[in-house]
Amino acid sequence: MHKPPPAPAIDFWFDPASSYSYPAVMTIGGKAEAAGVAVRWRPFLLGPIFKSLGWAATPFEIQPLKGAYMWRDLERIASDLGLPFRRPTTFPLHSLLAARLVLVGLDAGWGIDFARAIHRAGFGDGRDIGERAVVADVLTSLGRDAAAELARAETGETKARLRAETDEAGRLGVFGAPTFVTAGGEIFWGHDRMDRALRWALAEAAPS
Amino acid sequence: MHKPPPAPAIDFWFDPASSYSYPAVMTIGGKAEAAGVAVRWRPFLLGPIFKSLGWAATPFEIQPLKGAYMWRDLERIASDLGLPFRRPTTFPLHSLLAARLVLVGLDAGWGIDFARAIHRAGFGDGRDIGERAVVADVLTSLGRDAAAELARAETGETKARLRAETDEAGRLGVFGAPTFVTAGGEIFWGHDRMDRALRWALAEAAPS
Repeated sequence: MHKPPPAPAIDFWFDPASSYSYPAVMTIGGKAEAAGVAVRWRPFLLGPIFKSLGWAATPFEIQPLKGAYMWRDLERIASDLGLPFRRPTTFPLHSLLAARLVLVGLDAGWGIDFARAIHRAGFGDGRDIGERAVVADVLTSLGRDAAAELARAETGETKARLRAETDEAGRLGVFGAPTFVTAGGEIFWGHDRMDRALRWALAEAAPS
Repeated sequence: MHKPPPAPAIDFWFDPASSYSYPAVMTIGGKAEAAGVAVRWRPFLLGPIFKSLGWAATPFEIQPLKGAYMWRDLERIASDLGLPFRRPTTFPLHSLLAARLVLVGLDAGWGIDFARAIHRAGFGDGRDIGERAVVADVLTSLGRDAAAELARAETGETKARLRAETDEAGRLGVFGAPTFVTAGGEIFWGHDRMDRALRWALAEAAPS
């Protein structure tokens, strides 16, 4: 009896507030499908992770020079990928509600579409996704009942799930977003490591 | 009368103490030559830059989780590129002498070879390039008279030149290494942006 080789798989950890998560959210679906790698979308919050590590905030806020560079770099990346880009007037963005809604949507089949739409709202259109009205608008644009989905996002169960997901990210050693974790536990941080992570996942699953 | 288009050119800022400078130092020569981009090698010191920005040290030292990730990431990159990798037992490395020697060597035609050899000593062989004996050994391995070159590295003129180069990096807004600055002033930070920087330099020089 031979065990079948494991299927190539990756966990994709992202935060709707994370600037470099934007190009990853918009492109990982097509790339992973082409490569034959299954992706599990895992929204989480960077804020509590930073806090647990003793970091006061994102380096892009603490270090203005690095922040300014990040925006220019993201603009170039978006241009390369043909993605709209507009720097949000509010930053850091607050993604608590948006992240909870991704969880709700993943259960119901619209979570990936919502993740793409909320990232595009934040970094493609420069909207403040921390505002409830903006989040509701994105839900409506996807044909969802905004009031009903917002209510689902704010149940104790959804809140607890997002906390558990964030705790799990912390346990894995995730310290930034996006982060890709292969089935074998290999960690890749940053949109610029996405292709490498997909190749690694394929190599893990190749028959030896 | 037509002005000739500017030749594609890039300034390559690196610090012999910088881990991610290692793969860039080892590969930029071949890549840039293949692409037709002229490279100006510009050694500098990250330490004074960090200090001027109010950063206590490299994030890899302040944030152990990020540091541990960096070493694993660098190991994977080295493996991909077929470069030797060994984590130096001392880190951060002290690169004052090494950086001065790169300047001396660039004048005399052996600076690029020395830059490659000192980075390989630090990150390929895990040696402490802050030790004078290690630096002397690298010089000797390149057929140089170590005592004579070390003396040249420690003249007031060489010291002042390295300070001026580091000041220039700071004026340009360089805050990490490696950093690539195109003739048009576009800044790219990180080994993972090297190919993009070379393409940008080519596009700048293309006839419009």
